[in-house]
Amino acid sequence: FIGTVSLIAYVTVKAFQPKPPVEKKPICNLKIQKEVQKVVNIVDIEEIGEKVSYCRCWRSKRFPLCDGSHTKHNEDTGDNVGPLVLKRKSN
Amino acid sequence: FIGTVSLIAYVTVKAFQPKPPVEKKPICNLKIQKEVQKVVNIVDIEEIGEKVSYCRCWRSKRFPLCDGSHTKHNEDTGDNVGPLVLKRKSN
Ligand code: FES
Ligand code: FES
Repeated sequence: FIGTVSLIAYVTVKAFQPKPPVEKKPICNLKIQKEVQKVVNIVDIEEIGEKVSYCRCWRSKRFPLCDGSHTKHNEDTGDNVGPLVLKRKSN
Repeated sequence: FIGTVSLIAYVTVKAFQPKPPVEKKPICNLKIQKEVQKVVNIVDIEEIGEKVSYCRCWRSKRFPLCDGSHTKHNEDTGDNVGPLVLKRKSN
């Protein structure tokens, strides 16, 4: 009897267990301009001042500029991303 | 008897079913300099030529430069990211 129950239980468990989820590669951008096919930003080099940081974590509220949101993103997810910093040599 | 078996089966199934996975926020960077706490790149504005594209998908083999890998990343994941393009006005 125990054997029968065990077998039924085992088969039932097997049938109900979900397949392991397909390993899915993560996206970078959760929210920014999701209506466009590809978010490309073009910057005139002549218009850059002494120093500016551009976001590469896609979490900035001032995108394409970095607003420091990468810190929370890194903390929340264990990621290690940061901005691209453009600067002029200090003469 | 059927009732007993059903109950045992049900309880067993419940016990074995994994909890729904915690919705995990995705990371951006899978491979680049994972040994550093935060990947920041600093570029001298004076050294930029006519046009250059910087990667924001973290998949480029020429990181921090864009090598076009965002296209495959977008196709594979449904993401919509692209580079930051710096250019000088054509005079
Ligand atoms: S806010 Fe995105 S890199 Fe700083
Ligand atoms: S290769 Fe990463 S944005 Fe183009």
